[in-house]
Amino acid sequence: MDIQEIGKKAKEASRVLASLFADIKNRALSEMAASLMQAKEKILLANERDINAAREKGMSEALVDRLKLNESRIFSMVKGLKDLCDLPDPVGQGEVIKRPNGLTIMRQHVPFGVIGIIYEARPNVTSDAAGLCLKAGSSVILRGGSEAINSNKAIVSALVSGAVKAGIPEGAIQLIEDTGHESAIALMKMRQYVDLLIPRGGAGLIKTVVENSTVPVIETGVGNCHVYVDESADLEMAKNIIINAKTSRPSVCNAAETLLVHKSVAERFIPDALKALEEKGVELRGCIKTRQIFPGIKPASEEDWAAEYLDLILAVKVVDDIDEAIEHINRYGSSHSEAIVTKNYDSANKFLSRVDAACVYVNASTRFTDGGEFGFGAEIGISTQKLHARGPMGLKELTTVKYLILGDGQVRL
Amino acid sequence: MDIQEIGKKAKEASRVLASLFADIKNRALSEMAASLMQAKEKILLANERDINAAREKGMSEALVDRLKLNESRIFSMVKGLKDLCDLPDPVGQGEVIKRPNGLTIMRQHVPFGVIGIIYEARPNVTSDAAGLCLKAGSSVILRGGSEAINSNKAIVSALVSGAVKAGIPEGAIQLIEDTGHESAIALMKMRQYVDLLIPRGGAGLIKTVVENSTVPVIETGVGNCHVYVDESADLEMAKNIIINAKTSRPSVCNAAETLLVHKSVAERFIPDALKALEEKGVELRGCIKTRQIFPGIKPASEEDWAAEYLDLILAVKVVDDIDEAIEHINRYGSSHSEAIVTKNYDSANKFLSRVDAACVYVNASTRFTDGGEFGFGAEIGISTQKLHARGPMGLKELTTVKYLILGDGQVRL
Repeated sequence: MDIQEIGKKAKEASRVLASLFADIKNRALSEMAASLMQAKEKILLANERDINAAREKGMSEALVDRLKLNESRIFSMVKGLKDLCDLPDPVGQGEVIKRPNGLTIMRQHVPFGVIGIIYEARPNVTSDAAGLCLKAGSSVILRGGSEAINSNKAIVSALVSGAVKAGIPEGAIQLIEDTGHESAIALMKMRQYVDLLIPRGGAGLIKTVVENSTVPVIETGVGNCHVYVDESADLEMAKNIIINAKTSRPSVCNAAETLLVHKSVAERFIPDALKALEEKGVELRGCIKTRQIFPGIKPASEEDWAAEYLDLILAVKVVDDIDEAIEHINRYGSSHSEAIVTKNYDSANKFLSRVDAACVYVNASTRFTDGGEFGFGAEIGISTQKLHARGPMGLKELTTVKYLILGDGQVRL
Repeated sequence: MDIQEIGKKAKEASRVLASLFADIKNRALSEMAASLMQAKEKILLANERDINAAREKGMSEALVDRLKLNESRIFSMVKGLKDLCDLPDPVGQGEVIKRPNGLTIMRQHVPFGVIGIIYEARPNVTSDAAGLCLKAGSSVILRGGSEAINSNKAIVSALVSGAVKAGIPEGAIQLIEDTGHESAIALMKMRQYVDLLIPRGGAGLIKTVVENSTVPVIETGVGNCHVYVDESADLEMAKNIIINAKTSRPSVCNAAETLLVHKSVAERFIPDALKALEEKGVELRGCIKTRQIFPGIKPASEEDWAAEYLDLILAVKVVDDIDEAIEHINRYGSSHSEAIVTKNYDSANKFLSRVDAACVYVNASTRFTDGGEFGFGAEIGISTQKLHARGPMGLKELTTVKYLILGDGQVRL
């Protein structure tokens, strides 16, 4: 289908979606979950075609793993849709103001309308994003990567047939099947139909969207996160936190990529902590001072400070003081999640106020930056920018507001 | 100064601003007000130079009036700064969540950092925007129109000397003195220093910014607003509302530009209401049916339905029913402020839920769309888009949020 047609259909469907009560949206989510479950074999076959094509093109096994679906991954997509039913409907909530002239002003959360999602090879995003947008009352236009096109078609077909059973118009969930560059650019420029664009993927994708989009964009996900071990840190706690932040799931955006250590604890902390990290399979890259204390590891280059490894690699730097740590983070970080380990009240305060990031931690792992962990339920991504949403973006952040003003003839003097 | 230098200086100043308490920001606002008052003669002289140059270039007197300063306009800029002192500081407010694992999550409003304002010939924007951004804890980079450059220089020089007296760094308030096209484009691309860009001006300016900016943008201000008189309207109330919405201040964005009338009340309503509007000096342009009922007025063209006149001109159209009215508004409107006059509960409900605009009124004038009238205090503009802010943008909308997470060693399982 022509991409303008997709936009138009999505906009029309959004008018219907906007007025649906939570009951109907929840029924649709249940039907979508059931339909996905039923289509399991079809989806796995389609995914196999994608996997074979990817391997033929020489895709690395790490990337193949992100593309790959299996029973348990489909179960978790199904569970994701079901869990959305239990979350409160963000649409229609709000505040009321009564003005001295008698006007009643309601500030009410309403759906955006049409939300575009541009993403890469992970087919689970297809189902997660469709569910979240539907619950938030908006149509979704999905533009996944070419590697996942067969999987995405099978998933969207299942989701739509479920949604339609509950009375949702087809245009509410659409996939752009043309995975060429032009279709993505066209989506980025479709201001007359698309109200919001969320890119999910690596730094390259985000950059392309930011530079080309005239539709408003929320950037998500690039995470170059740091753990800073302060002079006064509990070193055992610091070791646990960096091990958790680096190794519990290295491929996600809230994993730590650089460890910063105050010089006065470097000699006591570094040998023990780095040995423990190495035992967990972490490849280390250190500054000169780190390598003096812990020889035999690779030197860290300028690129290492800026890298989001998404892998079992950690850069390590000894800093003179907390100011150098904060400066390093504000310079190289991606404004995602940053942690200090300290017993000093002033250091904690300084770090919290001066580090410019969505989530700043004292004495806890950066891995907690997540909609579920924050108690928001499902999330569409972690916003690393400052407009509209920052940090985990839940259902509420997928809505906008509208002022409804009730009068009885008021005019302005 | 080089524009990159301006950006860098603004970013550095923003780090100082972010940590200032309300007391100090309020002292700075008072000093800025006093300094502006003191520089009154200088500013008026500079403004005279701008006015003379504008007239030489053949600027229309309506535009000259927007550019012109006088004592009372300077007083109102001074009062604007003083009034900001009484508004609560948006920075630092927020909510707290306690998680089952013991983490305390604070969601706190924090300054954006650096805000760019691109505007046209109105020099009062210079002072209003500088005051609002300072109170919201952000540096501001002002890029006014070339017509107002002398006035803007004089105003900024006064504001900075006041702010500096209160200990605010110079970089907090800066004017781009180069008013060429390139300087505006450079500002729109300066992502490393500028966190948010707010264009204030006509549709052409907004379009240029939206199409060129890679810095996140909030669109403001274009207002093609409608008043729809429903079948069941109190016609006396309807007449008062359209007169107020059209004539109380025709040059502002919340003034009405089109009147829509249900066909079943057209014969009773139109002659009386249009006569009253004509008596107020309004030029009318009507659809065929309107002109059958009220002959002698100009025909309305397709362009009239889309026009933001900002003048004493009103387009008038008879519609078959409320559905046609809503469709017309969603097609031609600018999503600013829309009003229905009705006694029918179902019509009111339908209009409120189906009209897609920042502010939707029942039985009240569109002229109330204003930060002051909504009780928010001063505003930087009316957002007509859906991201981050919609409707009147006050101090709170000039901040972003940050999550501060306090733990005692938590790691994620």
